[in-house]
Order: sequence, then structure tokens, then C-alpha cells
Amino acid sequence: MNSESLKKIANTVRGLSIDGVEKANSGHPGLPLGMADVSTVLFNEILRFNPKNPNWFNRDRFVLSGGHGSMLIYSLLHLYGYDIAMDDLKQFRQWKSITPGHPEYRETPGIETTTGPLGQGLANAVGMALAESILAANYNKEGFPVIDHFTYAMAGDGDMQEGVSHEVCSFAGHNKLGKLIVFYDSNDITIDGETELSFSDDTEKRFESYHWDVQKINGHDNDEVLQSIQKAQTITNKPSLIICHTIIGYGSPNKAGSEDSHGSPLGTEEAKLTKENLGISPETFHVPDEVFELTNRAIEAGKAKEDAWTEIFNAYCDKFKESGIELQSLINNDLQDLKIPEFEAGSSMATRASSGKVIEKLAEQFPMLVGGSADLTPSNKTKASIQKVYSPGNKSGTYIHYGVREFGMGGIMNGLALHGGVIPYGGTFFVFSDYMRSAIRMAALMGLRVIYVFTHDSIGLGEDGPTHQPVEHLAALRVIPNLVNIRPMDANETAAAWKIAMDRIDGPTSLVLTRQNLKTVDRKNGGFANSTKTEKGGYVLIEDKDYEVILIGTGSEVEIALNARELLNKKGIKVRMVSMPSTELFDQQTRKYKDSVLPVDKTNRVAVEAGVSQTWFKYVGLKGEIVGLDRFGASAPYETLYKKFGLTAEKVVSTVLTMLKKA
Amino acid sequence: MNSESLKKIANTVRGLSIDGVEKANSGHPGLPLGMADVSTVLFNEILRFNPKNPNWFNRDRFVLSGGHGSMLIYSLLHLYGYDIAMDDLKQFRQWKSITPGHPEYRETPGIETTTGPLGQGLANAVGMALAESILAANYNKEGFPVIDHFTYAMAGDGDMQEGVSHEVCSFAGHNKLGKLIVFYDSNDITIDGETELSFSDDTEKRFESYHWDVQKINGHDNDEVLQSIQKAQTITNKPSLIICHTIIGYGSPNKAGSEDSHGSPLGTEEAKLTKENLGISPETFHVPDEVFELTNRAIEAGKAKEDAWTEIFNAYCDKFKESGIELQSLINNDLQDLKIPEFEAGSSMATRASSGKVIEKLAEQFPMLVGGSADLTPSNKTKASIQKVYSPGNKSGTYIHYGVREFGMGGIMNGLALHGGVIPYGGTFFVFSDYMRSAIRMAALMGLRVIYVFTHDSIGLGEDGPTHQPVEHLAALRVIPNLVNIRPMDANETAAAWKIAMDRIDGPTSLVLTRQNLKTVDRKNGGFANSTKTEKGGYVLIEDKDYEVILIGTGSEVEIALNARELLNKKGIKVRMVSMPSTELFDQQTRKYKDSVLPVDKTNRVAVEAGVSQTWFKYVGLKGEIVGLDRFGASAPYETLYKKFGLTAEKVVSTVLTMLKKA
Repeated sequence: MNSESLKKIANTVRGLSIDGVEKANSGHPGLPLGMADVSTVLFNEILRFNPKNPNWFNRDRFVLSGGHGSMLIYSLLHLYGYDIAMDDLKQFRQWKSITPGHPEYRETPGIETTTGPLGQGLANAVGMALAESILAANYNKEGFPVIDHFTYAMAGDGDMQEGVSHEVCSFAGHNKLGKLIVFYDSNDITIDGETELSFSDDTEKRFESYHWDVQKINGHDNDEVLQSIQKAQTITNKPSLIICHTIIGYGSPNKAGSEDSHGSPLGTEEAKLTKENLGISPETFHVPDEVFELTNRAIEAGKAKEDAWTEIFNAYCDKFKESGIELQSLINNDLQDLKIPEFEAGSSMATRASSGKVIEKLAEQFPMLVGGSADLTPSNKTKASIQKVYSPGNKSGTYIHYGVREFGMGGIMNGLALHGGVIPYGGTFFVFSDYMRSAIRMAALMGLRVIYVFTHDSIGLGEDGPTHQPVEHLAALRVIPNLVNIRPMDANETAAAWKIAMDRIDGPTSLVLTRQNLKTVDRKNGGFANSTKTEKGGYVLIEDKDYEVILIGTGSEVEIALNARELLNKKGIKVRMVSMPSTELFDQQTRKYKDSVLPVDKTNRVAVEAGVSQTWFKYVGLKGEIVGLDRFGASAPYETLYKKFGLTAEKVVSTVLTMLKKA
Repeated sequence: MNSESLKKIANTVRGLSIDGVEKANSGHPGLPLGMADVSTVLFNEILRFNPKNPNWFNRDRFVLSGGHGSMLIYSLLHLYGYDIAMDDLKQFRQWKSITPGHPEYRETPGIETTTGPLGQGLANAVGMALAESILAANYNKEGFPVIDHFTYAMAGDGDMQEGVSHEVCSFAGHNKLGKLIVFYDSNDITIDGETELSFSDDTEKRFESYHWDVQKINGHDNDEVLQSIQKAQTITNKPSLIICHTIIGYGSPNKAGSEDSHGSPLGTEEAKLTKENLGISPETFHVPDEVFELTNRAIEAGKAKEDAWTEIFNAYCDKFKESGIELQSLINNDLQDLKIPEFEAGSSMATRASSGKVIEKLAEQFPMLVGGSADLTPSNKTKASIQKVYSPGNKSGTYIHYGVREFGMGGIMNGLALHGGVIPYGGTFFVFSDYMRSAIRMAALMGLRVIYVFTHDSIGLGEDGPTHQPVEHLAALRVIPNLVNIRPMDANETAAAWKIAMDRIDGPTSLVLTRQNLKTVDRKNGGFANSTKTEKGGYVLIEDKDYEVILIGTGSEVEIALNARELLNKKGIKVRMVSMPSTELFDQQTRKYKDSVLPVDKTNRVAVEAGVSQTWFKYVGLKGEIVGLDRFGASAPYETLYKKFGLTAEKVVSTVLTMLKKA
């Protein structure tokens, strides 16, 4: 399409973006005005999509990492035939609208990921490109490139400053993700003012140090934009960065090039002047017929592109039956019923080790289980022997060495899950969940099946000391909505936890696992619950008739509580022992079930967990007690720590006795 | 000193490090063996310190960012005269020893910061160099360089991979922190195996893109080490990176150059072979007399260096009386009694705005209050008009534009506090506390006076939507030991919160502030508590005689609860209203005080907070109720959100009525 026509579309995008922000009286006009040209060229000339089927599996992915510029993408989606009406644009940032302040995955057709927290869109894009490359390497056959698309992302100065951009761009360069193309909206402005207040990186050099291909263009010159993308597409052994020099708030006579255009409406008068300046109609929410005629061509072309792909895909399925069926089930997210191992009682095993054994089984059954670790593979026990390592030379590998990049790993796993066709899991020490916390939150917000393997889950890791000992992390993760945390007490609860995580299609799960050995409870003998019931979150593990005390424990502290029960029994005190690997799952049960486990009239309750107590007041109430650890840990062998910090059967017993005396 | 002598010292360091790890049967020998040469040259030839006064204010700072290599620094501190005995080395990683698994600030003389979580030591070092430059620019006078030292850090491949290294090194380069010298221990090995599994950055080029000076040396060649440091010292307008090519586990015949030497003891046999190979005594924990003779020279020189400085400092205090007194009080951390403003009732003001007004007053009184924001200055309202911006051209500025680098800001603020002489505070949106969470944890663990200004503290921020709305963050931060969170209900509680934060010398404080306006309560009339009592964490704000219901609220929800009280009063229900800006401070009060606010027999309690409920079960018990928000927010004007999510006076009333019916 000629440059003039493209400018018309871009200016329509600008007009809509201005109007959306003005009407909401809230939002960010600067980015849409600045990046309208680049994104119009991309949508019109390059991007492979079919607006009538936004979930076409082989579509190009597009991520707006600077989610605050959401009116840009809403305007484009509207113009390019997605199911976003003009009325939706008018409802920008309003209750229940499909045009929220920042783009939200699942809320709006064509939105590939939720963005806003800077740097993470970039991480998601890296994950999408990674997923594409793994699937392509595993499933494409000569002449049948059934998985073959690009991933595009737009990032701004903020994205470039965030540390996670370093992690994921270094990762992408190392792994030669050639089909990742990132536009850097370099406009020299941040919220505080000119970028040079805080930022003077030579970004070209920086990305070359990561082994990216870098181009620099004028982001308002359509020819340069088009040519740079075409060139980037030909470079298959490196990701591409296209540095687009742009003017923030482009077109606004008094605010262009200034931070004033970033995060507030232009104002009625300036909006009017801007439209005049751009030579577009002063009418609000206006799209000239001519523009719809122009964009319609791309819509029709998109339909044709999917049809062409479907033809190839059908031929593929005919010719390579087994792969076809497998790939189809991956695309449709049909997970067969996965088998998990059963562990014999009597042995003693760290839950990280039983987790490792479960992973072995799962990887055998589900080929696109994409594992990894942030450089703690031997400690996290995350690699199945069957998994080959993903590397620039072997992109069919399904085990990812993420490097010491926890946050990056979290964001990349979100991208893998968003892309689909793969199920990601990744490991690190539990304490470093802090580094990736925002990515966990985003997985929960988006409802992504991402699985975290968090090992070394308490002071039980011993000598490494308080910097490595999570004490508050269980309580801190339990408050993230839609995240399920499971801290299993033994090998069989670990296996059940993995099953829950794999089956959970609408949110992330964290598995919180020990470094130290734990006995596998004999569920066939001794009065223990004869299945794990982990899926209930909490259940009666064993109990004495006419019990008067309820002990609640999780993970490694169940063993301590069981020992306390024995000691209490000797004193004639009868006990119900509740294993509660997941408070979130327990909370989801019926009132009736919950009351059956923790009867309202049984208020002599003690919770035991080697961490801060905040979680447990909900379950023990004002009359109950908590044997926890409301301080940082220390460096010493773990048996010493448990003793010194009073996380012992004896301490549980004395707590019970004191409580009973009070009651 | 000649290279042979230096080798002898380095090999002694190696022997001690091996022995420490062997005896503990836990630890990391690879780093000490690999970096013994570099660190010996640094300690012996370069570093300005006086082991007899580890807190000499103008000492050079040394940070071992890879804290797992702690035996390296413990061995050096022992050899160079710090108060670490051989018995302490033998107690490596044991309960209550001063040689914990990772170096811990305050536990061991000569340890400048707690390290272990990778990347953050580097961030601390940047903060220390920043503090030095600010103090130097403000207090040095011609001929009296009273603040004039270098900051050295050692970082490894893990540090280089972590995103925070990008944030802080970009920051340091931008700000031309010329007296920061970083050694990069480039040994090509990480836990998962060879670094090239996940990492292939051209680190030289990367740091050049940040405008650092970069040298590459053989880390086992003492002359190269010495010359590179001397050269780095002469480059005053750029930070320096010295890339030291080293062999991990140097000297170990079978494990050198392999990940096997990283994180486990060498084993008795290999330890023996290594010592043989290095030509040192097989005796454990052995220091040849000759080595002590060598290191003693540096000890004596250190004493002389401090003496020389003291002489200059005294002359400075004589000549520049006012500056002398001011600087002395900064060094000694004597904070005068700071005045905070009082706000008149009746006005309505966002707590972020009242915080801004408090900052104005504090900055006038305390010159080395070093403020900043992660690129949200106008939103966080963190800059006092009196504060000049810190920049490469004006290092006397006390307001830092941290850029969009929250984690980096957190780590740099820790470095500022560790250095001393300044009090750091920094702002971002509350939701992005997730990005810097590990730095907050480290501040709490180290007991540092760091102040976080977290604004936009709930769904009250409105249209930006769930990516920007903290719902779980209060609960999540309240579980970090030694962190105090304060969420003030109005301008006067905000002022009190600032006072608490400034006075709190042994830990960080987070101020959790609204975007939206809140009424300033009239504490002189209407029966309200006539002082804020914020320091108690929770207090009776107002009450009806013979109340039967307790309402507990924080921040913006106190206003809602107060409105609910009026409605309840109309129904004849009498209420005690408790403002609880800080659960942590409340928990620290006596049992008697706490019971006076929340009497044991008053169990009709309702807590109101626009966030997840986890915190509040502790205060309302099993019979109480919580009006909270156990889900993510949404994009819409905030008044709509409060209504739709049931955070209203009416909802509080209906909750109370249901509760009373049940009771």
C-alpha cells in the first residue's frame, strides 16, 4: 500500500486513540500517537492474522509491551476487523468494557497477553518465540512448515530500563530466536521527563552484545519501517531489534516530544489542534469510509492466509498421521489422562526428589512438557532423563537452561503458556520466588497454566542461612489471587500435587518442596487416610476417636505434628491430624466439607509450619495456637535450626498443653 | 609486595577456604579458589581499611556479590587482622557463629553487606559509590577530601545474568560513578554446567554500552591484577569493570574448571591433592608465620591511613565549623529531633500529597535525605522543591532519578543506607513493590533504615486496572520480618508515619499511600482521638459508649468505616472504630495495650480493607468478618470499583447486621 494511504490509517488510529483517552478522561495518548506509523505498517503490510479467528494457531503474535498505550492496539483491532466495536472504544477504561486501561488477555479478541508492568511483555514475546521454535523443530516436516510464524513486540524506554529486559534479551540472543522482532520506541521521554535524566545506554551496542541484529530507523517513515521489518525477517539466526526514533505525542502541536503527552488526556483544545495538525476530521470516534476500505484488504488477506495454512495443515495430518494427531491435540489443548507414579511407604525422600521422579513419568507421557530451571537443575531436580536440552543447535529440546534469570524465566514461561501447544514448568529456590513475583502475579491474573517447582522450601535447607531460607514466602504467595500453592508432606502428596498442577488449565500452581528427606506415609496401614486427597487442599490424615485437639500441618511439618500426636497420645490426649498442603484448594471446598475437617465446635487447634504465622489465624482462630517462625532463619545444619527455633514435636506438645489449660 | 609473597597469601586463603568448607561439610570452594589471587592483591596492595576500626567512615568499601564464596572473605578478614579468630573459621556455617553460610551484615566485622541473592551485592556497591559521591560533593572542600574512597565489588556470572545487574550498571554508567570498580569473575561455569549453556553475552561490549571502562585480564596474574586496578583508579568519569578470567576451583587437580567445585566440599582426598598441588601444608586451618608477617604490614598501613585521614578531618572541622559539625553528626548518625507538619482538619488530600508536603519539611531539616523515584516522581510526589537533582554534572544533588528500575532502586537504597551518612527513600507504585521485593527483604534482614514511598495503594487508582492495582501487596509485605508497613488514613497519620520511618534506625519502613483524596479527620472535635497514635500501630479513633461492635480499618477504608458507623448509629448499633495503620507496630505493643484496643470479650469485629483478607483473621477471629477484596481488581473509575466490589459503608453495615444476627 502506498505511504499516503498508510498515513491515513495511522492518523485514524491517532484520532481514535485521542478520543478514547479524552472520553475516559484518563489514559496515555503519547505512545499511540508516536507508534501509530510503525504499528500501521506492521498490521497492514506484514502481520499474519485472521481477525475472524483470533486464535488461529499459526498467526503471528503481536505484543504491546508498553500496555499503557492500549488505545493504539484497540484502535488497530477495531480497524482491522476484530470483534471490537466503536462502542467498545467509547467504553475505554470503563467497568466491564473489553477495552480496559491496559490490554488484558482473555478480555479482548486479539490481545495476546496482559501488559503494563514494564519489561514483561518483552519476556512474554521471548516465550512465544521460544514456543514457536520448539514446536516447529518437533513437528514441522520438509515441505510442511505447519508451525511457522513471527513474534513481534513493541517496547519502550521503560521496558529497556527494566532488568527483566536484560534477562530475556540475553536469553533470546543466546538461543538465536531469529523469528522474534522487537520494535524499540525510542522517543527520549519518560514520566519524569527526558530519558537522559536517568538513561543513556547505547542500546544498539547493548543488543549487539546479546548477539541481536540491530537496525535504526525513523519510526515515522513508512518505507524505512517496512524495509526494516522485511530485512529482519531474513535474519534467521538472530533476534532483531528495530530502534524506531519517534516523537512521543506525534502530531500534538504543544505536547509532542514532551512527557506531558505521556499519561494524561491531551485536553479538549489540544485534541482539536492535534487533529487539525494531522489533517483529520474533528469529529470524535470517526473512521473515514476510505480507511475502512483500505484496512478491509488486510482483513480479506488474513482469511486467505489462514485458509492456505489450513490446507497445508490438513495435508500434513494426512501424510504424517501420528504427528498430526499429536499436534492437533496440543493445539486444542486436549490433555490425555496423565498417570502419576505411586510411592511405596517406608522410604524417605525429599519432596524435590519425588517431584523429580514424577517429572520423569510426566515427560514420558506428554512430549511438549517444557521444563527448565534458573540454573539450579541439580538442586531443583527438574530435568527428566528423557528431555533433551534446548540449545541454539537443537531447538527440538524441551529442557530449558534459563540461566540465573528467575524473573526472565517467569515471564518466558508466561509466554510459552500464552502461545499454547506446550506446558511450561520451571524451578528455582523457593526464596527466589521473590525475584519472579510479578511474573507469578501476571500468570495468575491471566489464568495461565504455568508450574513453579520451588525447592529448598524452609529453614530445612540449613547452612546457606537466612538469605536462602524462605520464611515468609508461603504466606506471601498464598495471597496472590488465583495462584494455587501446594506444599506436600510426602512423595505421594507430591505426585498428587503435580497432577493438580497439570490439570489446572486456568491458573498457575506452585509446588513447594523440601531439600530434606521426608518419610512416605503408609496410607494402607496404621489408620492413615488411604488416599492423599491433596486435591481437597486439606483433609484428615489420621485421628483418634473422640479427639479433643486438631493439629494442622503442611509439608515437612506434618511429620513433626505426627510425632507430637504420638507424644500427646501417651499423655492421653486425643488428636485429629489434618494435612493441609494447600490452603487455597481447601478454601474452595464446600462449607460442609470444610466444617467436616475443622468442625466449628473444635476450637483447640494448633497449626505447625516452618514459616511466618499469618496464614494460620484463619484456621485456628483467636483461641488456637500457631507453632511457626516469625523471624528470619539462620545458618546452621537444619536439625539444629528446627530445634533452636522450636519447630519440634516437643514444642507442639507443650503448646497443646498450654492451650488446653487455658481452655 | 612481590608476586611470590602474594601467591603465598592467596594460597593460604585457598587452604583456609577449603578447610572451612570441608569441616562444615557444606559450602562453596570454587569461588574462593578462583578469586583468591585477585582478592589478595586487592586487600594487600590497594584496599584502604583499618581492621582495628572496621567502621572507619572513609574506608574503601568491598562487596562480595557472590556471597556463596563467603569463605574467601572470612579467610581474608582473618589474615588481615579483623576480629575473626581461627576458631571462627572452624565454626563456618554453624549455629551462632560469626561465619555464616553467606556473609551477613552486622554479624561479622568487615562485612559491608549481606549477599547471596545474586545481583544485589552489585546494586549495594552502586549505592555505596553513589553515597560517597553525594557526600563528597556536598562536604569536601579544596584541599580537604574528607570523603574520598573507592567501592570495590566482585561479581560472577550469576550476577551478570540477573536483571538487576542491568539496572544498576546502566545507572552507574549514566551517573559516571568513577570510583566504583567491579571485578567480574569470569570462569565460564555455573551450577548447571558451562556458562555457555545459557549465557553468551559479550560482557565487555555490554558494559561499554553503559559507558563503563572495561579491562580484561588474567585473574591469576598478580601484575595484571594490580595494574588493572591502578588504571581503573585513574579513570574518574566512568565506573570500571575488570573482567578477570579465572579458573573456578583453581588448584584442585580433578575439579578445577568444573561445576563440581562450585557448591560442595572438595572431599578429603581432593582437598589433600589440592593442597599438594598448591604447594601448601596439608595441615588444616594452617597459616604459616611467614604469611602473617606479610599481612601484618597491610594491617599497620591501615592504621596509618586512618590516622592520616583523622588529621585531615580534624583540620576540616576546625576550618569549616558548620560543615564539620553537620558531617560529624551524619557519620555518627545523630538525627536531630525532626519536626513534622500538622494538617488542619477539613481539607481533603491524597495521602501521597500529604506525604509530599511532609517530605518538603523533612528535606529542609535533614540535608542528606536522599530521595528518588523509579520514574514516577510526579505521581509519587517524592521530590521536595529544595532538592536538587543528582546528575553526572551535579553530584551534590540529593534527588535521584532512578529510572524505570524498581529492583535496582531497592538495591541501591540498601547501599546508600549501608554506606551511611545519608537516609534514602524512594517511590514507585505500590503494585511494583513486587519488582523490588527481594531488595526490601534484604533491607529488613540487614536492619537498614530505608523508606519506601508506595503510592496508588489499592483499586483506588482506578482506570489503570488490575495490572496496576495492588490487592495482595499489603498482606504480602506484612509477612516480611522486620519490615514495618504503615497505611495512613489521613494527612496527620501520614506525617506521623514519616516520623516513625525516620526514627526507625534498625529496619525499613514502607509508607502505603493513596492516589485519591481522603478527608483529614478533626482530632480536636467530634470525639476523635486527639492525637494520631500512629506509633502504636492501632488505636481507638472514636467510639460510642457501650459499643457492641468493633470496626477496624486502614488507610482509605477508615473513611468508609466511619460512614458505616454513622449508619449503624442510626440503627442504634454502637461502634468502636479502630484505625490500624500498621499491624506490625500494633503487634509489638504490650498484651495489655492490645487488649485495651481489641478487648478479648468483644468478638463482634469487622475489618475493612481494600485488599485480600489474609491479614485480618488474626484480629477478627473466627467469629469476626472481613470486608476485603479477595480477587484482582478491574479497570474503571475508582468510585465505580469501590461500589461494584462492595467496599462501601452499606456493605459494612450489612456485614455487621448479619454478624450480629449470627452471634
